[in-house]
Amino acid sequence: MAPGTRRTITGFSNPTVKALRSLRDKKHRKREGRFLTEGLRLLTDARECGRLPETLVMATGREPHPLLDALEADVLSAGGEVIETGSEILAKITGKDNPQAVAGVFAEFDTSLDALDRSVSPIWLVAQALRDPGNLGTMLRTGDAVGAGGLILIDDCADPFSVEAVRASMGAVFTQAIAQARWDDFIAWLRRGKGQLVAASLRDAVPYRGAPYAAPCFILVGNESRGLPEEYEAACDLRVTMPMRGRADSLNAAVASAVLAYEVLACLERYPG
Amino acid sequence: MAPGTRRTITGFSNPTVKALRSLRDKKHRKREGRFLTEGLRLLTDARECGRLPETLVMATGREPHPLLDALEADVLSAGGEVIETGSEILAKITGKDNPQAVAGVFAEFDTSLDALDRSVSPIWLVAQALRDPGNLGTMLRTGDAVGAGGLILIDDCADPFSVEAVRASMGAVFTQAIAQARWDDFIAWLRRGKGQLVAASLRDAVPYRGAPYAAPCFILVGNESRGLPEEYEAACDLRVTMPMRGRADSLNAAVASAVLAYEVLACLERYPG
Repeated sequence: MAPGTRRTITGFSNPTVKALRSLRDKKHRKREGRFLTEGLRLLTDARECGRLPETLVMATGREPHPLLDALEADVLSAGGEVIETGSEILAKITGKDNPQAVAGVFAEFDTSLDALDRSVSPIWLVAQALRDPGNLGTMLRTGDAVGAGGLILIDDCADPFSVEAVRASMGAVFTQAIAQARWDDFIAWLRRGKGQLVAASLRDAVPYRGAPYAAPCFILVGNESRGLPEEYEAACDLRVTMPMRGRADSLNAAVASAVLAYEVLACLERYPG
Repeated sequence: MAPGTRRTITGFSNPTVKALRSLRDKKHRKREGRFLTEGLRLLTDARECGRLPETLVMATGREPHPLLDALEADVLSAGGEVIETGSEILAKITGKDNPQAVAGVFAEFDTSLDALDRSVSPIWLVAQALRDPGNLGTMLRTGDAVGAGGLILIDDCADPFSVEAVRASMGAVFTQAIAQARWDDFIAWLRRGKGQLVAASLRDAVPYRGAPYAAPCFILVGNESRGLPEEYEAACDLRVTMPMRGRADSLNAAVASAVLAYEVLACLERYPG
């Protein structure tokens, strides 16, 4: 990509429009290794986390905004591309009737497990086969709130870079490290260092309240309908159970991880490891 | 409705198909005072909570199932209607490509505030202007888990009887009381009896952990993007704050209510009021 390019697109059939639009589709996103994010707030969050879009798409006729000017200047000076286009074309790209005035294309930034530094945070979230991108995004947001180091995705999870996940993360997709791994690789990596693996479970579990959590604590939640495989639960260092006073025997996955993460945070602060 | 009717529908253009299908739309749902729920699990949850559908729609060629037989028998003996139809028509009604083999139409069962018995539970959830039906359904599910009495919806919330909310509630829409009210009416009702109103807040708040909660405790969360209006927060008996260790200054609404509800549950059990 040439440094600091700027151009205007006026045609719906422009191949760039098609390429940008295709990033809403997982297959294309994975092939390109890029994802699309919409809105000045998310893009500013990203910028403040040191992440700039490779391509910035702005609506012609937008309201001027100092944060948008700053974003544009940073993208250009980093050698990125700025595209101006009509709001109808922006709507086509984002798939929304009333798109925000700006969108950006980012390179995906999955981290390998080996690149994670588990010493940077006492809490890590781990999701296994989570299928709902909204749940994934919400977990990222919760992770940011409790000061987690990142989110580790085990087995086949929803795409953390999908539009829904990025939106639900409220910018946390840019603050949290994200790693994807198979279970065996995750366990091998975990056991090479310090780390307590904790799962909410109904089997052989202690009450979650005041359980003996230890940092770095890896909080594992399973698939929305099947939960965790029994062998995964068995591999955990600690199985905890939350009160279930009604008919249901489980919580929403994002809710369960949040209740647990706040409990771990409180316990670790009371008795720092 | 004639007691125990049973009929078969074979035509896509049958007016009943159109009427059932229209229940996916909020306007029609409100006019009819009925909502559609899909799947044997949800329908069995409802039945076990003493709620039977007025109309049960079953796919011809479905797999037999004892719970489905029990449901059918109960609906018929309660004077309801059983409709059998092809899976393509069921797909048209539910709007899903692979519908489950059964769906039911229930009468909505909003409770008025005055019909709520606040003494039945130490915890109640209150949502103000919550727009996401998934969040509403998740709050119902959490309410069930903590043994809450119900969910009170203030101002213009998403519809708790929408397909998304019912699905996210995992059956809790049938176990939790649901009331809808304007703010002024809610406050007037609340102050006519015992009840502590608690909100997560950044203003004039105490740490949420171990705060002086008192039963019956009403946990209030606000709109996903705007939060609670300042005057609503000011009307609360207790404002609590949760640690925010990252960039974000808030949690997902369903997550915030759950973290708070589990804290209230733990505190009330330790120091029963």
